[in-house]
Amino acid sequence: MSGAIVLLSGGLDSSTTLGIADQEYEDLYALTFQYGQRHDKEIECARKLAEHYSVEEHKVLDIPLLEIGRSSLLKKGEKIPEHGDDEIGEDIPSTYVPARNIILLSYGLCYGESVDAEAIFIGANARDYSGYPDCRPAFYETFEKMSEVGTKSGVEGSPLEIRYPLIDMKKSEIVEKAHSIGVPLKLTWSCYKGGEKACGECDSCKLRLKGFEEAGLEDPIEYE
Amino acid sequence: MSGAIVLLSGGLDSSTTLGIADQEYEDLYALTFQYGQRHDKEIECARKLAEHYSVEEHKVLDIPLLEIGRSSLLKKGEKIPEHGDDEIGEDIPSTYVPARNIILLSYGLCYGESVDAEAIFIGANARDYSGYPDCRPAFYETFEKMSEVGTKSGVEGSPLEIRYPLIDMKKSEIVEKAHSIGVPLKLTWSCYKGGEKACGECDSCKLRLKGFEEAGLEDPIEYE
Repeated sequence: MSGAIVLLSGGLDSSTTLGIADQEYEDLYALTFQYGQRHDKEIECARKLAEHYSVEEHKVLDIPLLEIGRSSLLKKGEKIPEHGDDEIGEDIPSTYVPARNIILLSYGLCYGESVDAEAIFIGANARDYSGYPDCRPAFYETFEKMSEVGTKSGVEGSPLEIRYPLIDMKKSEIVEKAHSIGVPLKLTWSCYKGGEKACGECDSCKLRLKGFEEAGLEDPIEYE
Repeated sequence: MSGAIVLLSGGLDSSTTLGIADQEYEDLYALTFQYGQRHDKEIECARKLAEHYSVEEHKVLDIPLLEIGRSSLLKKGEKIPEHGDDEIGEDIPSTYVPARNIILLSYGLCYGESVDAEAIFIGANARDYSGYPDCRPAFYETFEKMSEVGTKSGVEGSPLEIRYPLIDMKKSEIVEKAHSIGVPLKLTWSCYKGGEKACGECDSCKLRLKGFEEAGLEDPIEYE
């Protein structure tokens, strides 16, 4: 029996990543983070996805990122996009949240060592969003090297592998992949707003809809 | 004006580290973590120390380590020693908490980038406690390398420096150093129990008392 941790926000990318991990690993452990601004809707989607994939355990952690992380993004009442969700550019976007993916992966390491997992999956994507330093393969490689030296499993020769299977995919390719492996896309949530239906207008909705359109597939969620 | 983050538990080592950072940096930012089992007494000491050094800001963060970190140590009602506080040996001690220092330093990175600090100080000690993977210089070096690639400040050429000034010191040398630079040792707390006075009997008290004895100094805190 082999196990993997999957960082699961409930969005399209992390849900597809969960589906990919499910093909390779027997025991899945889903890890969802709340930092004050994530909508209940998204957490609820994460819970349903975890249930769909019959994960061994799904942990939803409240982490105090807002208390110390200052960014143009961290204003009260605004949802924090995932890195890579929203902006496309060469510079580091203003929506960069200091060390966010480093913190999330660190919890992944803690959880992974605790349940004797072999890998941590993250749905990061660098293709269109090279501006985020923590969404690039080079970062994940150095994070893995760090954990080889700084964790028990690493020192003992069985470091947790950091897996980022979507890193080079376009949104349409992610949609295609999700579709091909049966990810229940109707359970995923991308909209920045927390309404009953997705707004279809925010950057995240637009990116998602464009991905479905380019993939020639219909988005199964409801829009206003 | 240059700034530094100091990870401050309120114990002897982190307090001495705060004193060292104070000699080099104008603006200090103290970061204290609670994970359910730290005594109020220790937090109170951290607050007084932060006040003594007139830090710009002192953040006390609740982090959900107990919810995912499994270790022989993480049992309800037991205080979690700092890595290096308690056990001496060549193997990885049973008190190892998965990825703890990685998580703590990651918050340090987040906070450091948010306040434009130049360094993060941690009171880790490897001399007598080589068994903890995350208390060794090799770990801190790879963590720094990871942050050079995975953070905005790193990518832009001004990575946060990871400082671990006590790493090679014996406890008596730490006591001597603290004394020589005027760290208010009466405000520090090492006892695993949360009493009004230190117990003098637990491993942490014993190690502290031995340090003072070898340094030829009197411990200014009260013991039962």
